[in-house]
Amino acid sequence: MGIFGREEAVVYKPVDKVALSSNSDEIYLRANVKAPRMAGFLVKLFAWLLELRIIGKIVLNILKKENLIHKLISFAELEEPPVFVPVHPSEEYGEQVKCIEFNLSPFEQVQEALECLPSSLENIPNAAKSSFHRWTILDYSRAYRSGVLTPNMVAERFIAAADKYSNHPCNMSFFINYDAKDILRQATESTDRHKRGEPISILDGVPIAIKDEIDCTPYPTTGGTKWLHKVRSCTDDACCVERLRSCGALLVGKTNMHELGSGTSGINPHYGATRNPYDTSRVSGGSSSGSAAVVCAGLCPVSLGVDGGGSVRMPAALCGVVGFKPTFGRIPHSGVLPLNWTVGMVGILAGCVEDALITYAAISGQLPSDKSTVSMPKVTLPLLKPNSFLDSIKLAQYGEWFNDCSDDVKFCCSEALQKLRKHYGWETVEVTIPEIEVMRLAHYLTIGSECYASLDCLLQKLNYEELGWDTRVACSVYGAFSAKEYIKAQRIRSRQMEFHRRIFLMADVIVTPTTGVTAYTIKDDALRTGELDYVNGAALVRYQIAGNFLGLPAVTVPVGYDKAGLPIGLQFIGKPWSEATLLHIAFAMQALCVSDYRKPQVFSDMLN
Amino acid sequence: MGIFGREEAVVYKPVDKVALSSNSDEIYLRANVKAPRMAGFLVKLFAWLLELRIIGKIVLNILKKENLIHKLISFAELEEPPVFVPVHPSEEYGEQVKCIEFNLSPFEQVQEALECLPSSLENIPNAAKSSFHRWTILDYSRAYRSGVLTPNMVAERFIAAADKYSNHPCNMSFFINYDAKDILRQATESTDRHKRGEPISILDGVPIAIKDEIDCTPYPTTGGTKWLHKVRSCTDDACCVERLRSCGALLVGKTNMHELGSGTSGINPHYGATRNPYDTSRVSGGSSSGSAAVVCAGLCPVSLGVDGGGSVRMPAALCGVVGFKPTFGRIPHSGVLPLNWTVGMVGILAGCVEDALITYAAISGQLPSDKSTVSMPKVTLPLLKPNSFLDSIKLAQYGEWFNDCSDDVKFCCSEALQKLRKHYGWETVEVTIPEIEVMRLAHYLTIGSECYASLDCLLQKLNYEELGWDTRVACSVYGAFSAKEYIKAQRIRSRQMEFHRRIFLMADVIVTPTTGVTAYTIKDDALRTGELDYVNGAALVRYQIAGNFLGLPAVTVPVGYDKAGLPIGLQFIGKPWSEATLLHIAFAMQALCVSDYRKPQVFSDMLN
Repeated sequence: MGIFGREEAVVYKPVDKVALSSNSDEIYLRANVKAPRMAGFLVKLFAWLLELRIIGKIVLNILKKENLIHKLISFAELEEPPVFVPVHPSEEYGEQVKCIEFNLSPFEQVQEALECLPSSLENIPNAAKSSFHRWTILDYSRAYRSGVLTPNMVAERFIAAADKYSNHPCNMSFFINYDAKDILRQATESTDRHKRGEPISILDGVPIAIKDEIDCTPYPTTGGTKWLHKVRSCTDDACCVERLRSCGALLVGKTNMHELGSGTSGINPHYGATRNPYDTSRVSGGSSSGSAAVVCAGLCPVSLGVDGGGSVRMPAALCGVVGFKPTFGRIPHSGVLPLNWTVGMVGILAGCVEDALITYAAISGQLPSDKSTVSMPKVTLPLLKPNSFLDSIKLAQYGEWFNDCSDDVKFCCSEALQKLRKHYGWETVEVTIPEIEVMRLAHYLTIGSECYASLDCLLQKLNYEELGWDTRVACSVYGAFSAKEYIKAQRIRSRQMEFHRRIFLMADVIVTPTTGVTAYTIKDDALRTGELDYVNGAALVRYQIAGNFLGLPAVTVPVGYDKAGLPIGLQFIGKPWSEATLLHIAFAMQALCVSDYRKPQVFSDMLN
Repeated sequence: MGIFGREEAVVYKPVDKVALSSNSDEIYLRANVKAPRMAGFLVKLFAWLLELRIIGKIVLNILKKENLIHKLISFAELEEPPVFVPVHPSEEYGEQVKCIEFNLSPFEQVQEALECLPSSLENIPNAAKSSFHRWTILDYSRAYRSGVLTPNMVAERFIAAADKYSNHPCNMSFFINYDAKDILRQATESTDRHKRGEPISILDGVPIAIKDEIDCTPYPTTGGTKWLHKVRSCTDDACCVERLRSCGALLVGKTNMHELGSGTSGINPHYGATRNPYDTSRVSGGSSSGSAAVVCAGLCPVSLGVDGGGSVRMPAALCGVVGFKPTFGRIPHSGVLPLNWTVGMVGILAGCVEDALITYAAISGQLPSDKSTVSMPKVTLPLLKPNSFLDSIKLAQYGEWFNDCSDDVKFCCSEALQKLRKHYGWETVEVTIPEIEVMRLAHYLTIGSECYASLDCLLQKLNYEELGWDTRVACSVYGAFSAKEYIKAQRIRSRQMEFHRRIFLMADVIVTPTTGVTAYTIKDDALRTGELDYVNGAALVRYQIAGNFLGLPAVTVPVGYDKAGLPIGLQFIGKPWSEATLLHIAFAMQALCVSDYRKPQVFSDMLN
């Protein structure tokens, strides 16, 4: 202990001295979360404690110390300068990639995407054998064009299903808001367009749900809270929503989410715990819980979420759907609640990779008015031709990390990886990715501090009791970091940017399970207070952080089920701006798994 | 007071709602520094107080509140997202500008600069009438080429002068280190090159001094401390020094500085107060105090400093020399002490604008290995042809700010501006630059937090008593900011980036006095403890911050003297990457003032 009262601290090797090969002497540090699960009275007590002026600070200090934040970040010694925003230079375009010219309209970009899809003649391997199939955007479009169905009919079915699931005895808590009148109005317009033979795009009349963190008129944007919309009004569509609307999409409402995105379970004390359609006693994951669950349950082929710390990919994996988070900056952030600035971005949840691709084409690309200095390369799309999959993909795998998950997840993901190797001849490269747990802590410190710096003035106007108890705890922790700690976390980011740059010299993507556990049980004591379950939380976010802290694109594909029948996702993390390659790989993976996809307990068929 | 115990806070208008015209209703807020001058026992007591665990935190909180940091930053309500690094997109090149191709060597860039200088036939207006003239790089070069002098002779004269000024009774405290043997070795090599008729460049054998914050072999880099070099060794030249060395420059030692750059007076308790050559009872300004004073006193035509909060421009103005800080990122920062990452940069101190131009050419340009995503435009140089000055320069002036200085400074700077209008027909545009005092506070919070996040591990290894007392106070304050405050300061930065972008739609440069006061008296009680004089400090930095916080290029030119005969500087702040225009304007200004330049009390003639 020096004059500053310092604790034990890590001295990091200079980044260029750290080996990333399989025989590196870097040690894999398991998350050592020192916090018991709390719900009910305990979480209330804890929230009160943290809000006490002096005692709160002492407790927070103990938490930071016990959870190794002091040792690994606050007092750590390192050379690297900070990197504050995960901005990447342009990459070369790979093979079998379609580059989209700048300044196309969303509709034109969707047209480009259609040309990337497999033709109907090229059957997806095994797809025919599939016992269960979610309707795709193309299915909706075909039904509308053939006149078998109209958007109005789908809207009515949607509203009926949404009503049913919202009420007793289902209580699925999929939505925070959906307005039947607004949905029917849009559907009528779309039906008219189809009747005239003038649909705007393939998305015309296709139901898409939006996470309640993204502005979408005529709804308020609650962020999963009971108060945020009272102090911040939603007057326009967010850019991504406006782009979907301009393609004719049927915007069917605002999905439930973990309050302020501050947790990963999707248990929201104000709007209900979003239940997992595969097992309604289980969580859907979060924070984009409703967006994952509605796609899972067949209410929409696609939804939008926001991914600041795995918030799209985690619930996607737990609900057995595709979750896709593009490179930082790829989708304009305007009209999304500013819960952070340097880690979060809009992501896509979809029933299949093809639909993620179409939606991605609709909403991606820099705003012409964007004055930021991120010079973004052209949007690229993969040519999804099942008979000509890339034959030279290298998948980086860090064994110790990959295997730090439940046995079922490990088995299922290893099997999936084995399939990729076998069917396409792809190669696995064993690597070491150092300091993963450090990155998780640095990311937590970053997202928490940014959330607090964004919301503090709104919180000021708030009767604090309007917040959920678990969110009160989160806000106390978010406000506990110093400027020095924040900047040091950015120095950790700089190390990881360099580590990953070097990993991507050895491989095209990094492959991991998406989550360390499958959907866990919703306990009754959590329903009203929310819950603090940092152990399950850490297992959920274990593989998420590079996608956010380093701004890398990542996608999760359902690859199987655990013994309880709960979905398991496999994640691919790509090079910056390599969305095309990533979707190509995801499509190839999906092709090998789709025949085994199972129907959820809760499922509504919108087209039959 | 809400549940967070919040104080009164400002609600900022959205940035696009703020008017910048002369009739804007934005109010100019004068710095309201609430801290008495302290030196001697008082500063010791204050340092002790701040280092107490609980009481220290309370006192720091009071200071933050009283100095409006809470009101204007910590609790302020604003919409803008943070901008963490002042990176600017490329600008169009203006008229009469020479663009330098990428990847030229420093020597080749110097050659390009030579072609920009006025030919000997084109006499600078009034220069002939000048009663006092500092030797320029060209003067040295001519003397060496003609054989009248050799670098060895200059080296010997330099060493004699440096020795004289370092000792009793002068005690000028110009240098922290200079090594006669090393200087003579370099000079001998240079003399040999000249004898062979093979000087490397016009800089061959020209003495240049380096601030002791920049690595320069064979010297340690003390940063003005008694300890930093013990925990961080200097093994290589910094990039900028290496570039000068590769041009043959005679590197004559490490100049004194304010300890850790944490103050603006240049009073260093370890290495002595750098005295002002115009009046040795006065400060030289800081933190690049020695670098300004040695150029002022004629020991070198040029020196390097580092400018994180005016640290080059302030001492340049107080010592009556040119101080030039290019756009953020223009000069590689490698080998400079990492006292901050987002505001500081190497700057140039020179006896005249021409020499600043040559030196700028030698050291500017991106490192080929720089992986940062700052895509820097080509280095540009102005064509200095006195008979063809640009005739359409628009100078933005914010009257209330411009006039917030001592009467002598105001008078002299207004006169200089009047001369520009009269001689060149340049136009002044009256503007309003909002929130200047907020920017000063946000910058202070930023540089302080970054300094602390950089040094904390070194401080940890330190017996704190090795620090000067004023620096101990600074370190306590630097460590007092939260992550939220740091991020909010970056949101303020974002507002100012936008304000200045709009100002530069109305004008080519912003013109201000360089400092609000001239060199003030060194009091005896400050010599051993350092002093805290935030009132004079605030007056010195009043016009500096945009150059650092927003990364804008800025230059100060001596334009006259106050009643006590102390120099006064006028500052031009330019658009991003507009170094050529800025040097052009500075040259035009200098041409109108040079005839009145006065010889300092302390002056050594190296060439006669």
